[in-house]
Amino acid sequence: MQPRVLAELETPALLVDAPKLERNLEKMQRRADALGVRLRPHVKTHKCMPILRRQLALGARGITVSTLKEADTFHAQGVTEVLYAAVIAPNKLAHALRLRRAGCRLTLLVDSAEGAAALASFGRDHEHDFEVLIEIDTDGQRAGLRPDDPRLLEVAARLDGPGAELVGVMTHAGGSYGLCDAGALRAFAEQERSGCVEAARRLRAVGHACPEVSVGSTPTALSAENLAGVSELRAGVYAFMDLVMLNIGVCTRDELALSVLASVTGHQPDKRWILIDAGWMAMSRDRGTAAQAHDFGYGALCEAESGRWLPALHFREANQEHGIVEADAGIDVRRDYPVGTLLRVLPNHACATAAQFDRYVVLDGPDGAPARWERSNGW
Amino acid sequence: MQPRVLAELETPALLVDAPKLERNLEKMQRRADALGVRLRPHVKTHKCMPILRRQLALGARGITVSTLKEADTFHAQGVTEVLYAAVIAPNKLAHALRLRRAGCRLTLLVDSAEGAAALASFGRDHEHDFEVLIEIDTDGQRAGLRPDDPRLLEVAARLDGPGAELVGVMTHAGGSYGLCDAGALRAFAEQERSGCVEAARRLRAVGHACPEVSVGSTPTALSAENLAGVSELRAGVYAFMDLVMLNIGVCTRDELALSVLASVTGHQPDKRWILIDAGWMAMSRDRGTAAQAHDFGYGALCEAESGRWLPALHFREANQEHGIVEADAGIDVRRDYPVGTLLRVLPNHACATAAQFDRYVVLDGPDGAPARWERSNGW
Repeated sequence: MQPRVLAELETPALLVDAPKLERNLEKMQRRADALGVRLRPHVKTHKCMPILRRQLALGARGITVSTLKEADTFHAQGVTEVLYAAVIAPNKLAHALRLRRAGCRLTLLVDSAEGAAALASFGRDHEHDFEVLIEIDTDGQRAGLRPDDPRLLEVAARLDGPGAELVGVMTHAGGSYGLCDAGALRAFAEQERSGCVEAARRLRAVGHACPEVSVGSTPTALSAENLAGVSELRAGVYAFMDLVMLNIGVCTRDELALSVLASVTGHQPDKRWILIDAGWMAMSRDRGTAAQAHDFGYGALCEAESGRWLPALHFREANQEHGIVEADAGIDVRRDYPVGTLLRVLPNHACATAAQFDRYVVLDGPDGAPARWERSNGW
Repeated sequence: MQPRVLAELETPALLVDAPKLERNLEKMQRRADALGVRLRPHVKTHKCMPILRRQLALGARGITVSTLKEADTFHAQGVTEVLYAAVIAPNKLAHALRLRRAGCRLTLLVDSAEGAAALASFGRDHEHDFEVLIEIDTDGQRAGLRPDDPRLLEVAARLDGPGAELVGVMTHAGGSYGLCDAGALRAFAEQERSGCVEAARRLRAVGHACPEVSVGSTPTALSAENLAGVSELRAGVYAFMDLVMLNIGVCTRDELALSVLASVTGHQPDKRWILIDAGWMAMSRDRGTAAQAHDFGYGALCEAESGRWLPALHFREANQEHGIVEADAGIDVRRDYPVGTLLRVLPNHACATAAQFDRYVVLDGPDGAPARWERSNGW
């Protein structure tokens, strides 16, 4: 790293390790290429154009978004293929139509006959045909129709134009976040694939072309052995990775590209507490590792410059702008971590922590000096 | 409420009920007046100039901030008396100095001899005298020196100019958030008051003027029976109140002024699930009611227009942009809450939920049409 870069920042700051980011992006692209599917990255994790630009340069095709704000932001910067991968609420249809009429090829998602009917009706009223996927539920975790649900054909029937055109099916096996065994992950990836492919087969059997079969989550994307019948793979958190992914077993410590830089502001020596200026506002309240094999509290502490892990420090509690770090017995917190010491905190969940910041400070990037990359937060 | 206002919003949206907000602001100001202390509102909750303007109009004097970004924002809009109520990290001293030289009377906080020495040294090097409070720990929850700590006088000695001037002591009894009994809250408020006053007494006994004795948290501010010896009261969340405060017992349902407007996007009828478009990105991951008498999950569901509570709905799980609401047995989720139904979600923790949004939609305000009020997030 460039000397003195960290010492010149105000804390808390959101850091991205550019070489690790680049390796993570390359690894997922290679996987998609090897599996013979398009990679359509989910930008909900980074919400950042310079990172998306690298994904596209490496071979990604189109993007996945979690909000129409993301669609606005990236379309304004030239991205045209956008999948809004959450079932659309009726009050967002006018916004979606504006984007489509402005030249954004925005694909929408439904999972009910009533939602499909409302969407098609809105399209007809505005003389516009939306392109639509049906969400398939392959793990019982959230939205979508099961692959064998009789309603699947009923929903598809509502998307037979005018107003709406069915272009395929989509699933997200978010339940993969609850696993930590490579064999179980492979089986889960196959469940995600086969369920979505089966839904497409049923639709084709009654005459729908259903060209798109879209699957993905970072754990399943990194575990799938084959994606036969799948047209595209979606994943988001792989860009940064995080402690939840480390516990799941789909990344190594060397792939953790996102961290929060914090300063020691004081101590409670009798409790071996180190107070830092990264609280829940900086880390988020995400405690995604709490139920996993290793509970990292509000994040894992590392030396700021070297990145060396500090396993004797435990991020126990967080107030709005205060983090409470407890040291193991034998550590003299005032001597070893004096006021002003910089620490890096690896987050539990990259999506949640990054969302607390407006921008990234990018270290060791191609330009030498640390870049500031903006995020597109909110709705 | 104005008819059709909610139907014209895109969800999720952060709503403020202006009449409730106004009553909350008036109530706290009346308490401070009755107790004979200045009210210095903590803007970390709302981070919003129009709300601060009402607080100042009602009699508040100066503000408390949790970040220097808040100080920048409000100073740029004419606020000069600013207390930065977190122990300052050395890498923020240059920023603090810029604010002071621009005319902001920014008061800083320290709780260690090394922190005080670093601050005074920086002041001397730049020929500037910072005004400084010492943080007092009255409940063992976070930072600060106990009122009887021998180091208190040592820290004060480092703030005897040039470079730094000791102007008083400050405490925050955040442990009050763990209580739910009026008697215990009164006792806690007295512990906060008496501890801070005792620290000031010790400092005065050795010759420090120590004019400022600053205490507060919303629960203790609303529970204190007297504030003898206190110069100013700080509180933040009282502006909006939230479910954590409701459980503590320092507000009523009618005082909950902040909510998130969400849309029903779908269902899993076999599980009696209602899917909504407010997930953890909108609500935050704050589960502050989890350890309280009533666990509200990720928030309490209400009818959007009437505000009537819906106790048969439970906000069980949250993904980034999806909320999973489970209905009690006997409810037909598709019939009773069809796609497109608007719901209001009362947050566990107003500071955390509001921070997920860039702006408020203000309902039933003096101007009639719903106003948009901006927030100043980040660092």
